[in-house]
Amino acid sequence: MLTLHTWTTPNGRKVPIMLEELGLQYTIKTVNIGKGEQFTPEFLAISPNNKIPAIVDTDVDGGTVSIFESGAILTYLAEKTGKLLPAASPERYKVLEWLHWQIGGLGPMLGQVGFFAIRSEEKSELAIKHFVEEAERLLGVMDKQLANNVYIAGTHYSIADIACYPWTVGVLDKLKPVLGDKLDNKPDLRRWLDMIGARPAVQRGMALPKVD
Amino acid sequence: MLTLHTWTTPNGRKVPIMLEELGLQYTIKTVNIGKGEQFTPEFLAISPNNKIPAIVDTDVDGGTVSIFESGAILTYLAEKTGKLLPAASPERYKVLEWLHWQIGGLGPMLGQVGFFAIRSEEKSELAIKHFVEEAERLLGVMDKQLANNVYIAGTHYSIADIACYPWTVGVLDKLKPVLGDKLDNKPDLRRWLDMIGARPAVQRGMALPKVD
Ligand SMILES: N[C@@H](CCC(=O)N[C@@H](CS)C(=O)NCC(=O)O)C(=O)O
Ligand SMILES: N[C@@H](CCC(=O)N[C@@H](CS)C(=O)NCC(=O)O)C(=O)O
Repeated sequence: MLTLHTWTTPNGRKVPIMLEELGLQYTIKTVNIGKGEQFTPEFLAISPNNKIPAIVDTDVDGGTVSIFESGAILTYLAEKTGKLLPAASPERYKVLEWLHWQIGGLGPMLGQVGFFAIRSEEKSELAIKHFVEEAERLLGVMDKQLANNVYIAGTHYSIADIACYPWTVGVLDKLKPVLGDKLDNKPDLRRWLDMIGARPAVQRGMALPKVD
Repeated sequence: MLTLHTWTTPNGRKVPIMLEELGLQYTIKTVNIGKGEQFTPEFLAISPNNKIPAIVDTDVDGGTVSIFESGAILTYLAEKTGKLLPAASPERYKVLEWLHWQIGGLGPMLGQVGFFAIRSEEKSELAIKHFVEEAERLLGVMDKQLANNVYIAGTHYSIADIACYPWTVGVLDKLKPVLGDKLDNKPDLRRWLDMIGARPAVQRGMALPKVD
């Protein structure tokens, strides 16, 4: 049995998208991070960094696999099924470099924009400027990459697209109040967003987890 | 031939450590990020996100491999040699989860502490507090993990240790002015720092790249 612990956030939606793409059977347990459910002892035993997503998979040779960090989970599911991450060089490492770029750059930096420009009541002009500029730079890097490649890591859809999509789908609208029309000239990013957003598995994954 | 493009920073030293551990032959090209050398067209062709480290390896079946993002590079070198990243579950994914934790958490958050608390002339109390608290939390997560495990991802030395070491070796001292004695109660982190720092390959890698 494969259990996914997740919530309705960008990182939380990468794994449902992946599982829907793969057609694997799974159960979702919601972890409401707004209510602090990431700090329960049961969840911390799976995810000691108190963050969603995490999975526990008991259908494995060699014992149960329990994994936190979305990039590691996407890699695991790709390797378990042989899908969405090529086995051979150089394609494999194009996917892993853009996956890591999302994990180490796009995700944390857009996360900080969310904190400083949107969620925090106290405001710091310095921090807003710093992260908004970095967000714009990163979205520019992505747009340029997509001008030369159909998908983020080349000619094929991969876990790098799945990692980037939930972070970028809302962002052009969300950052409009902060960035104005600076993101309007990102034609290739927009093309890619439409293409990825049209995938049925992506649409199903983006609607998860279901919350009452 | 394997060429490493790097600089004298935490991310820049992960790959030299790995290459020294593996005993691979390689050439270093320095990219002085203080002088903006990460923005030259030649470097951007390898690393479109304008960051070190990056590698180009021509000793590969299937064509030249060119990779940016330290986590992807460490994974590549581990898979090329069959070392420091187990092939089988569940050990493999313990390593990948902590590798991703460094890439997505420890690295970017300590990087922001460096920017707001140390490098930026303009100061934001809000941003300093936000990142210093997050740094303290992350170092606490690492200390707890090391209380239960010899190495960061379990019983064996791995690319997860290599990714975390250059970020944590200096940090307890560097953050002393900001965090005071808050990091003094991290006995397992200190044990691990001493153990990793005693490895000859780590010492050689930490002294690279050589800069006049
Ligand atoms: N690098 C991690 C980031 C995960 C993350 O930031 N999760 C957020 C929600 S999107 C979370 O659980 N926050 C709760 C908390 O930090 O207490 C990943 O990719 O899985
Ligand atoms: N997630 C990246 C981060 C790399 C990174 O932040 N590199 C810094 C030096 S430690 C850099 O090249 N900065 C130059 C710049 O951003 O212009 C990795 O792990 O490789």
